[in-house]
Amino acid sequence: MVKVSVLGAGSWGTALAILLANNGHEVTLWSLLEDEVELLRTHREQTDKLPGVKLPNSIVITSDLNEACKGKDLIVFAVASPFVRSTAKLSAPYIRDNQIIVNVAKGIEEATLSTLSEILNDEIPNAEIAVLSGPSHAEEVSRGIPTTCVVGAESKDTAHFIQDIFMSDKFRVYTSPDIIGIELGGSLKNVIALAAGIADGLGFGDNTKAALMTRGIAEMSRLGVALGGRRETFAGLSGVGDLIVTCTSKHSRNRNAGFLIGEGYSMQEAMDKVHQVVEGVYSAKAALALARKHDIQMPIVEQINQVLFENKSAKDAVDDLLLRDKTREYSDLEWKK
Amino acid sequence: MVKVSVLGAGSWGTALAILLANNGHEVTLWSLLEDEVELLRTHREQTDKLPGVKLPNSIVITSDLNEACKGKDLIVFAVASPFVRSTAKLSAPYIRDNQIIVNVAKGIEEATLSTLSEILNDEIPNAEIAVLSGPSHAEEVSRGIPTTCVVGAESKDTAHFIQDIFMSDKFRVYTSPDIIGIELGGSLKNVIALAAGIADGLGFGDNTKAALMTRGIAEMSRLGVALGGRRETFAGLSGVGDLIVTCTSKHSRNRNAGFLIGEGYSMQEAMDKVHQVVEGVYSAKAALALARKHDIQMPIVEQINQVLFENKSAKDAVDDLLLRDKTREYSDLEWKK
Repeated sequence: MVKVSVLGAGSWGTALAILLANNGHEVTLWSLLEDEVELLRTHREQTDKLPGVKLPNSIVITSDLNEACKGKDLIVFAVASPFVRSTAKLSAPYIRDNQIIVNVAKGIEEATLSTLSEILNDEIPNAEIAVLSGPSHAEEVSRGIPTTCVVGAESKDTAHFIQDIFMSDKFRVYTSPDIIGIELGGSLKNVIALAAGIADGLGFGDNTKAALMTRGIAEMSRLGVALGGRRETFAGLSGVGDLIVTCTSKHSRNRNAGFLIGEGYSMQEAMDKVHQVVEGVYSAKAALALARKHDIQMPIVEQINQVLFENKSAKDAVDDLLLRDKTREYSDLEWKK
Repeated sequence: MVKVSVLGAGSWGTALAILLANNGHEVTLWSLLEDEVELLRTHREQTDKLPGVKLPNSIVITSDLNEACKGKDLIVFAVASPFVRSTAKLSAPYIRDNQIIVNVAKGIEEATLSTLSEILNDEIPNAEIAVLSGPSHAEEVSRGIPTTCVVGAESKDTAHFIQDIFMSDKFRVYTSPDIIGIELGGSLKNVIALAAGIADGLGFGDNTKAALMTRGIAEMSRLGVALGGRRETFAGLSGVGDLIVTCTSKHSRNRNAGFLIGEGYSMQEAMDKVHQVVEGVYSAKAALALARKHDIQMPIVEQINQVLFENKSAKDAVDDLLLRDKTREYSDLEWKK
């Protein structure tokens, strides 16, 4: 049993708090929002985001960052990507040296092109930052559906420490040293999910969607390797695994926004209809900026940006992707003859 | 314009013959079965297997192997895997030295553990053997739905030659030197599709299925690399791409058979209900034999074999997969600390 705090009581933070409490740990769940704290204390349930799933009584709910951060063996950062920097700034004064923090949100900061672990390292330089990612709908994890994730850390001991804390008979955790690869997989997959949704919305078939997803993995991997990630990671749980869940689930906001764009709606109309933040729209911009900075070919990301921000028709974008020059699948494999 | 022959007039052979004819090539379509030749000549349609799709008048239909093989620039082998060796033996006498042959079927011969290109090299040693594979439902290709494949060959010139012949504005072809990787991807994915179907049939969620698919790619890749394939190939069109199509489509026999097994039917009952050959059942045996021969860990393949042939319950198999020892995602990545 260890003392764990989860910062952020959205669907993912709440699902993980429940998992950790069920694993026998002493769990504190923090939210900045007094209303949310009140709601969780009264109903012991995230009524909007995880309806029907009760929080174990052992979970302490608070809006006090000092209470949340003090004397914890592990702090889980589970705030949405746009709030990671501000939450890190707020919590930094309460965090002890060498505190282990695991970030579970996904995204790239548009202004700085930083990943979320880079932001946490900036703002809380005395802590040790790890990440957890993978194909893991919060709704399913909260209902005990078998799920796998990967934890990335610089040190093996930290990775194993976090693995031991999260692992259960329904939640299988792998370890990896590739923090940046894991983060980029989780972020870039949302852009490819937009493309997959567009193909569905245009009425194309399973072949087309599988092609976009596979070539999407290839371009995510090219960028990721250029940024220091490992190619294997993009073939793993936080790459192709997370991509599969995001592109094939009817519950994915990114895929659904793409579907509407494929049907002929504009980006803004699609976002209005989906009623929630569509992260892939922001990640698309950041991904393109990173691709240009590192001189990486990302044809799907290029086309998605043109559709989103330059009024290119979705149909023309898919046609242009299919009509590109003939090419090898991987340019670094050598011919025998 | 080149002269191409397609051996085998099933749904995939027929769809490719139509694609090649539409690309302007002189196409001959061969079947061993006189009835099938008669039906195709009369109706110009594969009425059972590709209903509603007409064969262009330019396609010559024949059961004469000499006519099919003589003077062709390219021969496409499109017979189902159990008939590849017999068809190769039959056609060998008619095939000229250095004939380029591209195999488009998928499978591993159970008795010899040979891939189909190895069988063709055995039986027609004077020819040059290439392969074509990828996420490509025949029904979709025959209706002009955008599709991608990868052609594998030993020589770059051969790969480009075949790429040029198949490539159209709806059928995008990549090239690769990794014949064995492409073949194993196409064959082993059927075993993982059985596992994914089982998870669906048990009522598990998207997280569970994505996990099985991703870990499936990892174990396919381990075996493939041991057999001389390239890791990248399993992250590509004939690996993860083909796996995605097979595991997510309601039309996949392997996935559907798995679904029934997950619901509690026996392997034989599931095969009876699916009414067609379930290739993954045969590939599962071959994959396990290969894994043991090369001392490769393939936990999903192991469990599937126990479910199929040793009456293990599907539920216990998924539980055992999730309760395995804690492990790293990829054992060859090094820790920073």
